[in-house]
Amino acid sequence: MADLPDVPPAPPVPPVAGFAFATAAARIKDWNRDDLALAVATGGPASAAGVFTQSALAAAPVKRCRAWLARTGGRARAVLVNAGAANACTGRQGMADADACARRVAGALGVRKEEVLLASTGVIGRPLPMDRMAAGTDAALGRLEAGQPLEDFARAIMTTDTFPKAAWAKAGKGARAPVVAGACKGSGMIAPNMATMLAFLFTDAAVSPPVLKKALVHTANLSFNNVTVDGDTSTNDTLLALASGARGGGAVSRASGPAYAALVDALSEVSLSLATQIARDGEGATKLVHVRVSGAATEADARKAARTIAESPLVKTALFGNDPNWGRVLMAIGRSGARVREGKIGVSLCGTPVMKAGQPLPFDGAAVSARMKRKEAALEVSLGSGKGQCAMLTCDYSYDYIRINADYTT
Amino acid sequence: MADLPDVPPAPPVPPVAGFAFATAAARIKDWNRDDLALAVATGGPASAAGVFTQSALAAAPVKRCRAWLARTGGRARAVLVNAGAANACTGRQGMADADACARRVAGALGVRKEEVLLASTGVIGRPLPMDRMAAGTDAALGRLEAGQPLEDFARAIMTTDTFPKAAWAKAGKGARAPVVAGACKGSGMIAPNMATMLAFLFTDAAVSPPVLKKALVHTANLSFNNVTVDGDTSTNDTLLALASGARGGGAVSRASGPAYAALVDALSEVSLSLATQIARDGEGATKLVHVRVSGAATEADARKAARTIAESPLVKTALFGNDPNWGRVLMAIGRSGARVREGKIGVSLCGTPVMKAGQPLPFDGAAVSARMKRKEAALEVSLGSGKGQCAMLTCDYSYDYIRINADYTT
Repeated sequence: MADLPDVPPAPPVPPVAGFAFATAAARIKDWNRDDLALAVATGGPASAAGVFTQSALAAAPVKRCRAWLARTGGRARAVLVNAGAANACTGRQGMADADACARRVAGALGVRKEEVLLASTGVIGRPLPMDRMAAGTDAALGRLEAGQPLEDFARAIMTTDTFPKAAWAKAGKGARAPVVAGACKGSGMIAPNMATMLAFLFTDAAVSPPVLKKALVHTANLSFNNVTVDGDTSTNDTLLALASGARGGGAVSRASGPAYAALVDALSEVSLSLATQIARDGEGATKLVHVRVSGAATEADARKAARTIAESPLVKTALFGNDPNWGRVLMAIGRSGARVREGKIGVSLCGTPVMKAGQPLPFDGAAVSARMKRKEAALEVSLGSGKGQCAMLTCDYSYDYIRINADYTT
Repeated sequence: MADLPDVPPAPPVPPVAGFAFATAAARIKDWNRDDLALAVATGGPASAAGVFTQSALAAAPVKRCRAWLARTGGRARAVLVNAGAANACTGRQGMADADACARRVAGALGVRKEEVLLASTGVIGRPLPMDRMAAGTDAALGRLEAGQPLEDFARAIMTTDTFPKAAWAKAGKGARAPVVAGACKGSGMIAPNMATMLAFLFTDAAVSPPVLKKALVHTANLSFNNVTVDGDTSTNDTLLALASGARGGGAVSRASGPAYAALVDALSEVSLSLATQIARDGEGATKLVHVRVSGAATEADARKAARTIAESPLVKTALFGNDPNWGRVLMAIGRSGARVREGKIGVSLCGTPVMKAGQPLPFDGAAVSARMKRKEAALEVSLGSGKGQCAMLTCDYSYDYIRINADYTT
């Protein structure tokens, strides 16, 4: 682990009524920081919904969350998260360990283990150190009453992230509008397909479980599914939303109308902020990259092209080197499977057109390279084949991506 | 460009009857070496077959080869190859330039331009410098009579390759058995799907064009389609085979029988050697990696799993760091789309079992890490679901992959 880095300035996250947060140092890896985080719905069961990895080898906590959310009909009292060990590919022992973690929290709160949702991140295939998990869980439970800000929760779930990621918004206007707040961790092994990381959204709105699920899926498609760091999808990807209802006011019980729209807007605003923070903090990233594809035959074609560009190692290394080598963008489009009409393609790099109607344009390479040196870069592609579009967030590939990942377990 | 590197020792390629090779310094980039290569069938038209990139944005020379091979029914007199500019995404000018290149060779040989096959490699989107191409082509034509070994041809087509790649074999036993010899270049932008690089196979066997095509496709599936460096597929991938028939003896005119089998064996032996050299020389690679998947539900499942493992940035960086982080192999299997039965999976790293029947096994991490430091590493996965298998060749991701690719055009 690198030393903990500077945190970019952000407005503090306000309390979310009905939730308490606490963290502890379980020392799951040999690090000097809190690495276990607990969120508890203090007033009774919250509505809960989740979106999980598409990996065929889901981690034990993912399997348990899926099963338990089905069993409770979308109700939960707590979320327990640890960094340092993924509890994935850990066989039968991993499932038993997940149960024991949930049972410890459930026992302290006087609820069923199925009401304690779990998420883990870290090395795959290494069993959870259960003695340290237990001590850490007890310590966090002991700090619940005093409570901690969501930023602390965000900091405790980091792995190779260089800053904690939190965001918040109001669902509607006025002092009584519900709060939506979220925390996530990203870094490597981030790819679309669904959640792509650990992310937790908390709201004090009252929302029925099926409506919360619908809002969450909609939100993920607008945010977390459009960010990719290296194309690698984790065994542990988890996006959870909990709604306490403690703000008071009427419950959102159908997926339409102004209250639902305000909820989705707030969830999406928070999620897009979190997803952007993930891309900005991709392992070793030196810049945030916006890939925008328009004019595709369909939205699926646009997504194929945008994703292939965003994940191409050759595109990403050129971005790191501020090399206006736009041919690599064309290479990626060509292999993406998206339908293209070569004579219609347009490309611009950081605002400078480099190809129009399939013909290369002369451009000032030094000037474009200078613009690529900024903290944000944009690759815009128009395919001239229809109305499909997709915007994807990614980052570049630097020496530090290799350094961080070449020596992770040892 | 780095300085030209050491060439690994290899037996010299013998002459292939009926072919002459020549190279020249066209100075397409600012480098101090030959960068244009010419092969001519000296005794008349050779049978010719090609397999090309699956990119939707194929380069001009690829489009011309496809069209001309169809027009001639699989006959060619010459192959002209240049490094330094890909003549891809170059619009109408690119097609006109390709025609002019072919016409120059055809004029000197007194044949039609359709009998001159073309291949280009280098920066995408940059037009060919036609004056230098013309001068280089004339120089190579002037050196044809003296002739050069195939190794010179292999050296002239290099881009970021660190050594020239050539190989040869005999198609059958005895002094009169035909020779098959090949040259290729690889390095970055190497992925399966078909040819994945530039490769040229020459034989003095007599083979009818349709049988040569069939043998070439079969060969590609056993060799070039099983090598991947970074998952990026070029606009220019080209695999060509030419058969002069100058060795004498009966023609191979059907795709069965001992003469066909001997031909396919020799083509495959040469192609597998070339593919292995490509993986060993992946940009910045420090080791050759064998990924072997067995026990998959189908061969397609095995290929999905093997390819995803071989292309995972997180697996490749762990290999570079000699980090026995086998969980990343499981992560890749999980996201590959291959059907898996978690309780049946077995994994070994460099010969050491680390997972059996879905359960992690204790192992000596330091000892495995020490074995990973060798020049070749092996990842073996059994999925326990059927009889599908696939062996894929790849390499690790090092700092040098980033260095080479961050600053390629500038």
